[in-house]
Amino acid sequence: MARSSGRKLSSLAPDQRSEIICQLAALLTEREDQILAANKMDVELAVTTENMPPPLLKRLSLSPSKLSSLSSGLRQIAVGAQESVGRVLRRTRVAHSLELEQVTVPIGVLLVIFEARPDCLPQVAALAIASGNALLLKGGKEAANTNRVLHQLTQEALTIHGVTDAVQLVSTREEVEDLCRLDQLVDLIIPRGSSQLVRDIQHAARGIPVLGHSDGICHVFVDVEASVEKVLKIVRDSKCDYPAACNSMETLLIHRDLLRTPVFDQIIDSLRTERVKIHAGPRFASFLTFSPSEAKSLRTEYGDLECCVEVVDSLQEAVDHIHKYGSSHTDVIVTENEDTAEFFLQQVDSACVFWNVSSRFSDGYRFGLGAEVGISTARIHARGPVGLEGLLTTKWLLRGEGHTASDFSDQGSMKYLHENLPIGPLVASHRNSH
Amino acid sequence: MARSSGRKLSSLAPDQRSEIICQLAALLTEREDQILAANKMDVELAVTTENMPPPLLKRLSLSPSKLSSLSSGLRQIAVGAQESVGRVLRRTRVAHSLELEQVTVPIGVLLVIFEARPDCLPQVAALAIASGNALLLKGGKEAANTNRVLHQLTQEALTIHGVTDAVQLVSTREEVEDLCRLDQLVDLIIPRGSSQLVRDIQHAARGIPVLGHSDGICHVFVDVEASVEKVLKIVRDSKCDYPAACNSMETLLIHRDLLRTPVFDQIIDSLRTERVKIHAGPRFASFLTFSPSEAKSLRTEYGDLECCVEVVDSLQEAVDHIHKYGSSHTDVIVTENEDTAEFFLQQVDSACVFWNVSSRFSDGYRFGLGAEVGISTARIHARGPVGLEGLLTTKWLLRGEGHTASDFSDQGSMKYLHENLPIGPLVASHRNSH
Repeated sequence: MARSSGRKLSSLAPDQRSEIICQLAALLTEREDQILAANKMDVELAVTTENMPPPLLKRLSLSPSKLSSLSSGLRQIAVGAQESVGRVLRRTRVAHSLELEQVTVPIGVLLVIFEARPDCLPQVAALAIASGNALLLKGGKEAANTNRVLHQLTQEALTIHGVTDAVQLVSTREEVEDLCRLDQLVDLIIPRGSSQLVRDIQHAARGIPVLGHSDGICHVFVDVEASVEKVLKIVRDSKCDYPAACNSMETLLIHRDLLRTPVFDQIIDSLRTERVKIHAGPRFASFLTFSPSEAKSLRTEYGDLECCVEVVDSLQEAVDHIHKYGSSHTDVIVTENEDTAEFFLQQVDSACVFWNVSSRFSDGYRFGLGAEVGISTARIHARGPVGLEGLLTTKWLLRGEGHTASDFSDQGSMKYLHENLPIGPLVASHRNSH
Repeated sequence: MARSSGRKLSSLAPDQRSEIICQLAALLTEREDQILAANKMDVELAVTTENMPPPLLKRLSLSPSKLSSLSSGLRQIAVGAQESVGRVLRRTRVAHSLELEQVTVPIGVLLVIFEARPDCLPQVAALAIASGNALLLKGGKEAANTNRVLHQLTQEALTIHGVTDAVQLVSTREEVEDLCRLDQLVDLIIPRGSSQLVRDIQHAARGIPVLGHSDGICHVFVDVEASVEKVLKIVRDSKCDYPAACNSMETLLIHRDLLRTPVFDQIIDSLRTERVKIHAGPRFASFLTFSPSEAKSLRTEYGDLECCVEVVDSLQEAVDHIHKYGSSHTDVIVTENEDTAEFFLQQVDSACVFWNVSSRFSDGYRFGLGAEVGISTARIHARGPVGLEGLLTTKWLLRGEGHTASDFSDQGSMKYLHENLPIGPLVASHRNSH
């Protein structure tokens, strides 16, 4: 049902998809009372029966201001919807009167699994609608009432162009593991939530690709030629700006020659001022006169005001350390030497590699990708921060006049040209008259 | 070992990768005697102990002319190697002195599993080298001797730039199923061989993406407004040019209004002239006065001079039939009506959708993609005929001057610009001096 409605959704004009999203954005504020009433039920239930800890409770709770910023986020996605489906990526004149076009199309049916945050629902629904994909949503049971109302509003918005069934809420009774085996029905799974959720889904998925990152073990390497001022700014921001984020620094690598220099002391002091708990890597521990706790593993995602500090002898050793212990998410070098920086940028095999920039920039909004679908540490399809285009694939359209393969054989009359043609604007034709 | 050598391979200059491939191309002809001697052993073994059927034996056998055309194919791949790794796809000025670049990089470690044809080995090795990927090769045991020699020559070529271990031959004793579970070591699996091989691999792979297509159930739909001349050319070529190919027509859909017209008779006569065995779909069978065998399933890949013929009432019914029974590989409409054609091109959800062209054009060489990696019916990463770029992913490079996320907060001094910058030529920097 979702696939068939999704096909209808993808054949709408981009304007029509935008209109649905704007309608949903409007409903989020118009029906504020209804949404907040349902949300209040969830929150009360969570407090009385589930004993939910305050940070989770905060994520579960909606407010007029949350709804209003959600609504304006949706309007931005509606703008992105104008340029997603049907974009021509390549045009080739294969031969006389034989033209090839590669155009963007939706992936098909997405399954998004999300945890307590109910504001995820309209956001993900808008991304799916913008990219012409059908969507199966599986939310946490803590937000069941809120999700039900938000899903009703989504369907109400979809109804204006007759594609009500393109977004479906999967009953909370269905087991996630069972959903992950529906490889004939689901084309891509996107888990939104904790690393543990993503890891579980990656293990459960059979034959269905999963877009997401389970670990964010990001490194900042301080080279011997680093500017002290930049080091202090970048280390502080990478760790302290939002310690729970996947793009926060978990390991600080310091060039050996910096040990027992004033720079080194300043870095350590600055982390202490910010109350960052330091775990010493084995090599670092062996150099120390004072003794912070030793790191249990060099592959830890602390997700808090804690980090590992380790010493490396050289640039190459920093690269090797990152390859051995990192998660290929985001890794940073701080140095004033351009050759050193370029070597690091080329050699480090991660989704994002930065020079003299905080690791926190690894983010779709900061990259300017518009709506963010997530961050992927997969090595195929989409890698790093993923915008709407991560929800698209392509198809090839070939238009001819009766051309056959045998026309091009040795005895045939035709010759291949394979000329690149300029790419025009959006495909204009969205004919639904049949 | 392969991953580490692959990283070295990917940091070579494009010229160096081309050089390795050209060296391999040269070795294929220089060491012809050695290769053919090993191949003779395999062929004799296949004849005496395995009782191999002639078509398979033909694929197993190498000859001077096969080696020479293989060699020239490799030289073409060497040209493609110049423009694969390190291509800049996107440049953005994120803020003052903060520039983002998205560049192509290799996927990592590929596992290619291939059957009897030993000429697959140097070809796949060249594709991997061109795209900077490490490669694990698992060939059929029928070609063990030939593969061993071809692999030695590949390593000899790799040695000129110190990356001998980037291409590894996996012992024939290893079970394919075990290899398909090495999700920490292998980034992409490419099965080259029968549909059955691909299906087996797709089922065995755990958490590793598989590039390939298991089925090629391609349709040609003859609309009521089709040109007779084009229909006859396209139907004949789609079925008869190479019936065993995945892009051959398996089902011919005919608009109901063409039944009992001269066009219809001409189509059937033409198929009979070519000795194509017709299997009637249930609706078609009900219209017939003569009675060909009934199709056992509308979802059959005959792979031979056989096809299913079915009748549909309308364009929409043709689209629905293709969605229900097709494999989303390649589907064709024959019509003179542009609106009808565009509706079909938009609505049919297949990797390749053609108008008035034989289905046989669904091919990397014919599309002008240069070296062909294969054809993919997956819905993410690469879809349809896949060139070298299917073996690449991207990474994001961000170069700043100490920028932090908090510089951009409400209290911060910086503003996002997100200006698209022009994309220059290939990244020049391949510094290996450290």
